[in-house]
Amino acid sequence: MREMNGFLYPRTKSGASSLIPSPPWYYSGDLLTVEYRTDPANVEALLPDPLELAPEDPGAVALIWADWQSCSGSREELLDPVRSQYKEAFVVVRCSFAGTTYSRCVFIWVDKDFAIARGLHQGYPKKLGSMWQTRPHPFPHAAPRIGPGGVFGATLAAADRRLAEAVVTLREESDTNGFVNGHPMAHHRVFPDIAGRGDAYAELISSGASSFEGGQSWKGDAELRLFDAPTEELARLEVEEIIGGYYRQVGVEWNGGRTLANLAPEPTTT
Amino acid sequence: MREMNGFLYPRTKSGASSLIPSPPWYYSGDLLTVEYRTDPANVEALLPDPLELAPEDPGAVALIWADWQSCSGSREELLDPVRSQYKEAFVVVRCSFAGTTYSRCVFIWVDKDFAIARGLHQGYPKKLGSMWQTRPHPFPHAAPRIGPGGVFGATLAAADRRLAEAVVTLREESDTNGFVNGHPMAHHRVFPDIAGRGDAYAELISSGASSFEGGQSWKGDAELRLFDAPTEELARLEVEEIIGGYYRQVGVEWNGGRTLANLAPEPTTT
Amino acid sequence: MREMNGFLYPRTKSGASSLIPSPPWYYSGDLLTVEYRTDPANVEALLPDPLELAPEDPGAVALIWADWQSCSGSREELLDPVRSQYKEAFVVVRCSFAGTTYSRCVFIWVDKDFAIARGLHQGYPKKLGSMWQTRPHPFPHAAPRIGPGGVFGATLAAADRRLAEAVVTLREESDTNGFVNGHPMAHHRVFPDIAGRGDAYAELISSGASSFEGGQSWKGDAELRLFDAPTEELARLEVEEIIGGYYRQVGVEWNGGRTLANLAPEPTTT
Amino acid sequence: MREMNGFLYPRTKSGASSLIPSPPWYYSGDLLTVEYRTDPANVEALLPDPLELAPEDPGAVALIWADWQSCSGSREELLDPVRSQYKEAFVVVRCSFAGTTYSRCVFIWVDKDFAIARGLHQGYPKKLGSMWQTRPHPFPHAAPRIGPGGVFGATLAAADRRLAEAVVTLREESDTNGFVNGHPMAHHRVFPDIAGRGDAYAELISSGASSFEGGQSWKGDAELRLFDAPTEELARLEVEEIIGGYYRQVGVEWNGGRTLANLAPEPTTT
Repeated sequence: MREMNGFLYPRTKSGASSLIPSPPWYYSGDLLTVEYRTDPANVEALLPDPLELAPEDPGAVALIWADWQSCSGSREELLDPVRSQYKEAFVVVRCSFAGTTYSRCVFIWVDKDFAIARGLHQGYPKKLGSMWQTRPHPFPHAAPRIGPGGVFGATLAAADRRLAEAVVTLREESDTNGFVNGHPMAHHRVFPDIAGRGDAYAELISSGASSFEGGQSWKGDAELRLFDAPTEELARLEVEEIIGGYYRQVGVEWNGGRTLANLAPEPTTT
Repeated sequence: MREMNGFLYPRTKSGASSLIPSPPWYYSGDLLTVEYRTDPANVEALLPDPLELAPEDPGAVALIWADWQSCSGSREELLDPVRSQYKEAFVVVRCSFAGTTYSRCVFIWVDKDFAIARGLHQGYPKKLGSMWQTRPHPFPHAAPRIGPGGVFGATLAAADRRLAEAVVTLREESDTNGFVNGHPMAHHRVFPDIAGRGDAYAELISSGASSFEGGQSWKGDAELRLFDAPTEELARLEVEEIIGGYYRQVGVEWNGGRTLANLAPEPTTT
Repeated sequence: MREMNGFLYPRTKSGASSLIPSPPWYYSGDLLTVEYRTDPANVEALLPDPLELAPEDPGAVALIWADWQSCSGSREELLDPVRSQYKEAFVVVRCSFAGTTYSRCVFIWVDKDFAIARGLHQGYPKKLGSMWQTRPHPFPHAAPRIGPGGVFGATLAAADRRLAEAVVTLREESDTNGFVNGHPMAHHRVFPDIAGRGDAYAELISSGASSFEGGQSWKGDAELRLFDAPTEELARLEVEEIIGGYYRQVGVEWNGGRTLANLAPEPTTT
Repeated sequence: MREMNGFLYPRTKSGASSLIPSPPWYYSGDLLTVEYRTDPANVEALLPDPLELAPEDPGAVALIWADWQSCSGSREELLDPVRSQYKEAFVVVRCSFAGTTYSRCVFIWVDKDFAIARGLHQGYPKKLGSMWQTRPHPFPHAAPRIGPGGVFGATLAAADRRLAEAVVTLREESDTNGFVNGHPMAHHRVFPDIAGRGDAYAELISSGASSFEGGQSWKGDAELRLFDAPTEELARLEVEEIIGGYYRQVGVEWNGGRTLANLAPEPTTT
């Protein structure tokens, strides 16, 4: 029997072509977060069965920019950083399943294919986008520092349209980096049926960091503007009230999750 | 019950965010093809069970560049062409399953996320790449014409490395646009288990154009150079003998396929 | 004496590194044009001395998208089309100098460095942008044809912001491809003084195609939307009245121009 | 008289469109440097009159990657970081003019148009490229730290071809960040004659940082591979002997320079 290797496609005898290697995956990066409240009905419009609105503060939303360097266990990507660095912006809400509160990424944009592929596995609904966030630097000639008065901008665009702009001004140390993205993630993974009859495969999975280290969190004032686009619904999560802005540097390991519910449809008889 | 819409992720109440709309999908584009023979063992290294080498000319390979405009049934993408145009390069071999010969795309690179997403559904193992192919034009100041003596170049790069270069010089009209990509496609669709135990889902599917129109095919001489890269295996399909180069303009409709074999593993007991 | 070669920087003994080769330069491409009228004061705000408003229809503006393949006399770029193909969008007004009417490109965006460099020589004020325009194709599955009822969309973005969107619906053959871009170009070429005292070099030059062939021009209805951005002034050329939309395929040779006026400042005495 | 504003093109009444604002310009960033020796004849092939080889170590070359955030005096670009961040790789040699030793950038690639435009003013011969360099980060999950044993990779590509790859392993603190890029820069600024008779304008200018702060320099082992390309001459600067690798974080202000020699040709009579 011909054995094929490779965590994801394309699988080959050697496994060298796989778009991504097997977990665990490692990340070092900076998170810029804006949390705000929208009408809970806007959140509910993004929660498929069997998910329900979270019992507390159900309209809370986090829009998070992340500037990542990432690698597999071999760390070889770090020496060819086109395969290691990527940027992303993602929108997280909370939801409830079987009595537990989960975080859920409802929209996400990245700028590399390996990041899309890791998202497929993890249930992040990744599209390509163009994300920029101000970087801190030890020399202030053209950079803020992470600390009181540090001002960070962030933008998100996709398909040549700007979708979001944020400015966060840090004020003080914070016990948290926000609360919306603080639970295990509950994500769907689906394959539409190739014959066009609903989904061939659907499951609800949960995962989170298998290891995490974070620096001091900072919080401050935040401004956020969302813009409409024909194939995006980010702007429908209208900003009613800003909760706050946050900045934190983190190191993360991700190493799989677990199935919460198998949602595969009953076999269709033709 | 909350009804969610959207062919693929992210699914929402409105369905407007889905990375791709439901099939049928429509394509108008130009194909530049180089066919050649490699050692059949190189092809076999890319064929997972239950696929076998094709019985005839098993080492035949087609490397195809395509310059596409595409849309859904609404045709709205055509007026916002950043959502409509994309380029790709893909490698096709043939294989045998249950006594039938199929074409199979073993490697493919595209430059848009909607193209990656359509490939997920169709089983094309898409990565991001940078593809360029000479365009024909009615005015010859900086363009060939499709006809005798027309010279077309094509290149493929990924992760900032050039992977392939071809030059095709058209000589004469041809009855075919090559033979390697002429069968229904046999592709795998897989979801690795979120808990890390093999695949949660795997099937072998088949599909092809639901409607096809093509202009006159042209054939001619071809040169092809393949270059190595750490995460690619294209260059392992070494060129032993060039079969020929082809050029054709086509219009295609794609509207689903069928499952050839459900390859899902036995449920693993923990 | 060491002889250096190369038309533009970087110049070396061999000349092989020059960002662009010497003219003549050759182009084959498709032009999508929207002509409209704005308040002539908006045009005047873009005309440096010694240019004046054109005597007739001084508020006429052309916004032109072009999908180009280009090369030098060697034609070698055509076989490595990443060095040959580029897209652009540019804004043309008319002006008067010494009793003659000229066309003048006031804003232009391209997507390749060699196009920026040719613009430096020709006095086109090129920035990088992302331009898309619907392509015609012989097969209508996902493409219009150049003819009655053909609908073409075009978009322009820069710095992750959309700046313009147009839709042109062709109605009938036209004697012209518009009139705003129909004169020789009058452009400035400047080098700010390295010591910060105005310009070290400034001249007004004129150039146009040294050879030109065009297919049948088509005209029709046009819609145009312009969007504001912090570092762009395109939207200040407000659309008061649409003149029309045009489509034409062309072949062009460019081979230099001539100086209209040397604008270099008097030498500054320190 | 109509007054036009804007440091560089396009100039308008408001000046808002200028591709770059007036100096001073500010930079915060990280420099990864590999210094090596090549045959001095390779350096000489890149030095136009009136420059001569440097009297000491004339074959020394520095290949420098820089990961920059930059802004004007308004600092507004820092809140829209698509207009602030850019990456570059550049090659520096030394040369002699009028008895003084200068550094000279002979090749440089950047990834933003505002960086190209600043280079026009400063005499850097900028092309577009794709540059990546490993980033340090406080959390080591997927990042080195700046210190003993820190390993940094860097790559350069242009026109879909990889041109250079480096790996630097830091060993110890260093008194310098290398010596090749340590002098004021001597650069040419040229405008080819629009009528095709040599240069309309040419001068030799000098400039350097008007203000500079740097962190601790680190040095270590370096590997460097250069790759050939049809329109590049970087690989002709063959590596004969590695001098060392360096890493330093810096803050820079640039605010103009001075003319060393006016090289404008005698006026040509027609």
